[in-house]
Amino acid sequence: MADKRFFTVAGPFTLGQLAEMTGSVLSDPAAAGRSVVDVATLQEANENKVSFLDNKKYAESFRQTKAAAVFVRPELAVGAPAGTVCLTHKNPYKAYAIAAQAFYPGEKPRASVAPTAVIDPSALIGGESAIEHGVVIGRNVKIGARCRIQANAVIRDGVEIGDDADVGPNVYISHAIIGNKFRVHPGAVIGRQGFGFALDMGGYVAVPQLGRVVIGNDVEIGANTTVDRGAGPDTEIGDGTRIDNLVQIAHNVKIGKFCVIVSQTGISGSTQLGDYVMTGGQSGFAGHLKIGAGAKIAAQSGIMRDIPPKEEVMGSPAVPIRQHLRQVALLSRMSAKKGQEE
Amino acid sequence: MADKRFFTVAGPFTLGQLAEMTGSVLSDPAAAGRSVVDVATLQEANENKVSFLDNKKYAESFRQTKAAAVFVRPELAVGAPAGTVCLTHKNPYKAYAIAAQAFYPGEKPRASVAPTAVIDPSALIGGESAIEHGVVIGRNVKIGARCRIQANAVIRDGVEIGDDADVGPNVYISHAIIGNKFRVHPGAVIGRQGFGFALDMGGYVAVPQLGRVVIGNDVEIGANTTVDRGAGPDTEIGDGTRIDNLVQIAHNVKIGKFCVIVSQTGISGSTQLGDYVMTGGQSGFAGHLKIGAGAKIAAQSGIMRDIPPKEEVMGSPAVPIRQHLRQVALLSRMSAKKGQEE
Amino acid sequence: MADKRFFTVAGPFTLGQLAEMTGSVLSDPAAAGRSVVDVATLQEANENKVSFLDNKKYAESFRQTKAAAVFVRPELAVGAPAGTVCLTHKNPYKAYAIAAQAFYPGEKPRASVAPTAVIDPSALIGGESAIEHGVVIGRNVKIGARCRIQANAVIRDGVEIGDDADVGPNVYISHAIIGNKFRVHPGAVIGRQGFGFALDMGGYVAVPQLGRVVIGNDVEIGANTTVDRGAGPDTEIGDGTRIDNLVQIAHNVKIGKFCVIVSQTGISGSTQLGDYVMTGGQSGFAGHLKIGAGAKIAAQSGIMRDIPPKEEVMGSPAVPIRQHLRQVALLSRMSAKKGQEE
Repeated sequence: MADKRFFTVAGPFTLGQLAEMTGSVLSDPAAAGRSVVDVATLQEANENKVSFLDNKKYAESFRQTKAAAVFVRPELAVGAPAGTVCLTHKNPYKAYAIAAQAFYPGEKPRASVAPTAVIDPSALIGGESAIEHGVVIGRNVKIGARCRIQANAVIRDGVEIGDDADVGPNVYISHAIIGNKFRVHPGAVIGRQGFGFALDMGGYVAVPQLGRVVIGNDVEIGANTTVDRGAGPDTEIGDGTRIDNLVQIAHNVKIGKFCVIVSQTGISGSTQLGDYVMTGGQSGFAGHLKIGAGAKIAAQSGIMRDIPPKEEVMGSPAVPIRQHLRQVALLSRMSAKKGQEE
Repeated sequence: MADKRFFTVAGPFTLGQLAEMTGSVLSDPAAAGRSVVDVATLQEANENKVSFLDNKKYAESFRQTKAAAVFVRPELAVGAPAGTVCLTHKNPYKAYAIAAQAFYPGEKPRASVAPTAVIDPSALIGGESAIEHGVVIGRNVKIGARCRIQANAVIRDGVEIGDDADVGPNVYISHAIIGNKFRVHPGAVIGRQGFGFALDMGGYVAVPQLGRVVIGNDVEIGANTTVDRGAGPDTEIGDGTRIDNLVQIAHNVKIGKFCVIVSQTGISGSTQLGDYVMTGGQSGFAGHLKIGAGAKIAAQSGIMRDIPPKEEVMGSPAVPIRQHLRQVALLSRMSAKKGQEE
Repeated sequence: MADKRFFTVAGPFTLGQLAEMTGSVLSDPAAAGRSVVDVATLQEANENKVSFLDNKKYAESFRQTKAAAVFVRPELAVGAPAGTVCLTHKNPYKAYAIAAQAFYPGEKPRASVAPTAVIDPSALIGGESAIEHGVVIGRNVKIGARCRIQANAVIRDGVEIGDDADVGPNVYISHAIIGNKFRVHPGAVIGRQGFGFALDMGGYVAVPQLGRVVIGNDVEIGANTTVDRGAGPDTEIGDGTRIDNLVQIAHNVKIGKFCVIVSQTGISGSTQLGDYVMTGGQSGFAGHLKIGAGAKIAAQSGIMRDIPPKEEVMGSPAVPIRQHLRQVALLSRMSAKKGQEE
């Protein structure tokens, strides 16, 4: 059960309510009135809690669970122990997520402006928003309704953010136009000038970075991630994209919709990712590349050429994943043989 | 055209003025009095704007541009369309940078000290400097003239920074002596104690880190980059060096003049980089190495030995770039053959 | 000698005092009353300073040092120059660390609460603690005695931190239970929600992250490092572990005691590291792995499988270090031959 020092549980909910809100089917309709008070893992759940089975690794835990009910794929429901009701769904992890959101809706920040916040008089802040201590908001900033701007965040002149944003502490945002439901975690830096300069005799001349960062709706950006603004064109991040911690996104990069960018990925200037691209942790992209929609980039890959849509690649330099595994296996066999000869 | 919410354009300038300030030659001296109002890409420019051609990939855009004038290498000027004047220069990107700086000089911060800034009475702040909200400045700090210390930055006791610095929001600086024209982006951490400890029975004993960070003139450090102070010797960064976002620089590292350190590079303790070294993104350096002047390190390289001056290396462990490409090609051919046999 | 602008030296100490506090043996007991005023490197030390020899690379500097005394292994003491006393110890670097701590004990923050700090009335702060400017402390937070919470740090509701903590500027901590002697450097982010969501038609559904971050005693976390809280289970970091800058630790990760995690390492969700594991810089771990106690992971390694205790691995994908070196050597020879043929 979640630590009460940090989480407040809502509920209880009846299994009927959970089935309805998640679009699941109750294996025993007579149990619709039974109520549960919390979510839990299969091992920790008891007769008052609901759990889920998503990964077959946990099939044994499922057979032995004491949970009141379990979200599970229809074809696996037969394995449930007596006394456990199944809430069947094609995507039980999604159904669990919706139920867990109902139990733990999170706290809505109370609309308020902290006395230590510094907000330029020309800024427009939507209704029901909370502006915390030490926040600095510049001229002509527009922030939508029901937003939370957390402590010590700095939002520079002209930035526009839609409704229902959650901007973490110590975040920096400049030169950005951002949609609704934006969530950005502590320490992220969005809109600083990109790394652009011309070589000169014995030094460098800064090239003014005249673009913006344009971010769609329902985008999440992780802690201490950096997103540079465009050099002339904009840096763009499409609707629904999820970006993890410590990611670098350089100037003019275009990221499509519903991409998943895992921690410590680095994307060099002007590279474009289509929709639904997934990048593994610590992967790196050279500049000016086109990565097709649905491509999957394995962790630590180094991308030095365009990648066709839906291709799965691995390695540095990255090659199609089967080819990479063949190379690894080949090298392993050859060096083993060589080792024996020596 | 740059978004007016974020950028204020200066000008207009005549082509004669642009030729003079950039050291370019006008292909049609009679056009010297013609004036332009902005910079733009070749595709977006019109008869009131100036553009540039630097990369041959864009030769076709050059032939079709509607720009009033284009910065271009002398030998390529013949390809200009009728109606477009050429501003010829050996380094057209540099010439463009200078012109763009003239159109977008940036806003000078108004000299001021925010009422929420906390400045120790012993600190000395030069004339025309702006100290923003929430800034904390310690004892005996010296900051030069025309500096901007942005919101919520923390500058610890004894730090010295020259003239014309721009210290971004939420930056931390301690134990550092810094030259003129320093620019450090949001969230960077400079001068924390290095990662130094002695092994002990069942634990570690911290080794006091008694050195400093010494930074030359005209140095730029990216967002969320970390530069540890020396353990006894100093950590040093030479004049004109450019460091990107999310870079790690460990204790006692010496970086020469005019180096370019791309995002997510990591440099281990006591390694030394000569002047004009360039490191690609996500490259990593073991400790106690010497990297010769002018060496070029490709992205994701792992440097485990000294590198001679001007050598270009790639791979992990890194080898000369030709050798690396041979290895990649060899492995690719062998695994392809093996794949056919299977 | 350490720059007086940043460091205040204590002492002097007699060699007898240094021998006693470090558990060393004086090669010349008659020198016990001689006093020294500072620590220094072998090359910079003079007749008033004490130094150490730990790395055989510096044997020549040892023979030529002018130091009053040197911490050194017993078997190497014979190489000392005339006039230099030896303080012999099996672990001279540790002995030096203890002596250096005596000379540079650091400044104890004066107990105080800055007027610009915002502390919820329900928070409990232990005696002799210093809360600096711009700090925000939430409801029911418990902070021990003799802690320093540096400027603009944000500590969210319910967090508990033991005695003698040093929390750096701009740090964020939420959903965490932390032991004594905690040190966390500027910009670190601890306890944000992990990167967890369920796939949905055309998008993602956030999975509430209901776990915590549980940190033992005497743990150090570097600048701009991110530690996500658990998804249901906790994220855990054991006693005595040292984590460097810009490291990513995902939800549910368990790190044992006395581990050393070097800069830019990334550890994916639910992976477990045993005690005394060491990870090199930029190494990456896939999720749900078990890394045995005492394993050593070389820099830039990519870990895609469980690693047995004490195994040393290298490469991406990582293999035992000897095997990796054989692969590198083999590839080098083959491509060299191939190069000659071409």
